[in-house]
Amino acid sequence: MSTLWKSRYAQRTLGVKSSAIRELLKVTQKPEIISFGGGLPAPDVFPVKRFEEACHKVLTEHGAEALQYSATEGYQPLREMIAHNLARYGIVASAENVLITSGSQQALDLIGKLLINRGDRVLVEAPTYLGALQAFNVYGAQYVSVPVDDDGLLTDQLDPSLRAGPKFMYVLPNFQNPAGVTLSEGRRHQLILLADKYGIPIIEDDPYGQLRYEGQHISPLVVLDRENLRRDNGFTLGNVIYLSTFSKTLAPGIRLAWIVAPEDVISKLVQLKQAADLHTSTFNQYVAYEVARDGFLDQHVKLIRQVYRERRDAMLNALHEYFPPEVTWTHPQGGLFLWVNMPEGNDSQTLLTAALAENVAFVPGGPFYANNGHEGGHHMRLNFSYCQPDVIHEGIRRLSVAVKMQLRGSHHPSSVGQ
Amino acid sequence: MSTLWKSRYAQRTLGVKSSAIRELLKVTQKPEIISFGGGLPAPDVFPVKRFEEACHKVLTEHGAEALQYSATEGYQPLREMIAHNLARYGIVASAENVLITSGSQQALDLIGKLLINRGDRVLVEAPTYLGALQAFNVYGAQYVSVPVDDDGLLTDQLDPSLRAGPKFMYVLPNFQNPAGVTLSEGRRHQLILLADKYGIPIIEDDPYGQLRYEGQHISPLVVLDRENLRRDNGFTLGNVIYLSTFSKTLAPGIRLAWIVAPEDVISKLVQLKQAADLHTSTFNQYVAYEVARDGFLDQHVKLIRQVYRERRDAMLNALHEYFPPEVTWTHPQGGLFLWVNMPEGNDSQTLLTAALAENVAFVPGGPFYANNGHEGGHHMRLNFSYCQPDVIHEGIRRLSVAVKMQLRGSHHPSSVGQ
Repeated sequence: MSTLWKSRYAQRTLGVKSSAIRELLKVTQKPEIISFGGGLPAPDVFPVKRFEEACHKVLTEHGAEALQYSATEGYQPLREMIAHNLARYGIVASAENVLITSGSQQALDLIGKLLINRGDRVLVEAPTYLGALQAFNVYGAQYVSVPVDDDGLLTDQLDPSLRAGPKFMYVLPNFQNPAGVTLSEGRRHQLILLADKYGIPIIEDDPYGQLRYEGQHISPLVVLDRENLRRDNGFTLGNVIYLSTFSKTLAPGIRLAWIVAPEDVISKLVQLKQAADLHTSTFNQYVAYEVARDGFLDQHVKLIRQVYRERRDAMLNALHEYFPPEVTWTHPQGGLFLWVNMPEGNDSQTLLTAALAENVAFVPGGPFYANNGHEGGHHMRLNFSYCQPDVIHEGIRRLSVAVKMQLRGSHHPSSVGQ
Repeated sequence: MSTLWKSRYAQRTLGVKSSAIRELLKVTQKPEIISFGGGLPAPDVFPVKRFEEACHKVLTEHGAEALQYSATEGYQPLREMIAHNLARYGIVASAENVLITSGSQQALDLIGKLLINRGDRVLVEAPTYLGALQAFNVYGAQYVSVPVDDDGLLTDQLDPSLRAGPKFMYVLPNFQNPAGVTLSEGRRHQLILLADKYGIPIIEDDPYGQLRYEGQHISPLVVLDRENLRRDNGFTLGNVIYLSTFSKTLAPGIRLAWIVAPEDVISKLVQLKQAADLHTSTFNQYVAYEVARDGFLDQHVKLIRQVYRERRDAMLNALHEYFPPEVTWTHPQGGLFLWVNMPEGNDSQTLLTAALAENVAFVPGGPFYANNGHEGGHHMRLNFSYCQPDVIHEGIRRLSVAVKMQLRGSHHPSSVGQ
């Protein structure tokens, strides 16, 4: 009977596929495999005890409210706390500029719903976050891709793409997923001026901003935009919608993130969210508020930084120790990922098969490119947050075996079959 | 700067408005107002203690998994429990037929996304659930409405509407929101035969099915469909997608519901859900499983039935005591709502203003009609689950004052302005 349903599917479902990463993760759940594939936070830093105390307090003191339906906008004390925390990064926002979402993925879905008509172009980085492409694909987005280097998006190359009139730009300025690179301060200023010049707004996705392990904090685009606009007219929020989340600082399993936008944009997003899931779990919002409050979040982020810095260093050291000189990689100043560049002509999908034979996994670069083409064929994304340092060391050793084998193969085609 | 954003909004956002109920609820949150407006479960029956034990157990025994990312399909033990519980209603489904969603509203959104191209017609009951209209509106649905009476959808009137070729039918067979009526067994059979004859699938929304206070359980459409199809070809799930939720049996604040569908439909819905919010809160799924298990859910539903039956009876008695004979109302055998019919020519929107002056609130009937027209002008929806019996009695007394005032006004137009 499924034939009946299939014949009824809407046009938008045709291009929708399950994420390559998700399918990969199914394969790599065997315990003998060391996985650098997922984007998973380390479970050993989840503040489990604090969650337990928070659940107890919420249910004892606010059980009737926390288990009931609630406002689409979100739990007001949580919105206020988020607005308050944003101020330390120079982001001037009130609770009314904050919409609580069911994870950042919902934020991306609501933004796609709000802005994309079928066939609209969206400017994205190459590579960019796969989940954003998935969210925007549902609404029939087409893409204009602009490459990144070690200093992030190549803003010098933006002019022709902006002249083509994309609906908006989607940018991850800090420790980008997947490449791990950070947009330099100079390029941030340039990007804001270009956005203003062409009237093309920006979605700034910042899930990792607090997880910096070295170097100086750089102002978010939303702050630079405000400084730029203020000179003209005093608006506090303008051309940039800013996204962040508790998934990397508290826990992803509670699905809590937020959108910061001008009030009338929030009000439209609220209408769309209401139709999408009424509101995000009341209980989780009460619990996250109790967990984060009284400075706990700040203390906890310090712990995460320490743990992840150690893991990043373990991965960088192991790559240096084991990988052949033809292979290069990014040096992320924060976040969860680094990006490995194999010499051109290598195919990371084939490499994955060899790597799995060595009991190690990663995500091939292809799916992070909007046109899903072969641009990413010689890249791989490695996650360093999930495994402990000694496991990272062993995993990179295993991966180097597969890499060297492939390099021998591609450099000496005659050796194929030996 | 919001002008910049506004000029970028997608076409689909034009028709999207905030729910009339939601706006109304903001007005009625004053403590002096007795509200029959919301569809809120009674907080006094939330199993708060059991939730607390479940949170403690989940965090102590499964903290690392429960706070982590998880599968889009849902937590496997919870899917299995739901499939198992469905069997007692004759619904034959395995865990693979069950997709966990972030509340029923997300189920409706995913179904709209899956099935509706802009301009597609959807057959709905008149009146029907407002939240479904909101979800489907986003995807540009048009509607064909067929009225309900005390035995539910008038299946005798379906033929011409089905010949017009709607994409699917959306039906609430049990204790319908808003009318409180139940589709009779005879009409259920007729509906299934018509669906089969015209090849028009059905979305069966059943949030209240377990909350029956009198009369005999009637088989869900998904079961009758299976019996019908089986005679032909042995498929277990076919023309009907079935929706239900924990919102009315455990608590709405945890946002947990589910879709039951053939496996390949589930697989497509999983792809859409992945793009929409990755997955529903892992933590909430673990907690709900712990709360519901070992027969607790069944025991708890018995308690809810007892409490809500008493409240329904309190409302029916008070209506009988206070309301004038020209006004009639439905006699719901279960659920949360009843539907009041004023004589034609009365406007329940005007009545609401008078009612609020008496410190009592309800939802006017208009928004429950797909074409949002004046069809619902002389109806009101009353919720009986939220308030305690003595409060219900007092609220209906207050409401009767406003009703009698309006009836006097409409019967004696000469009195206008006095």
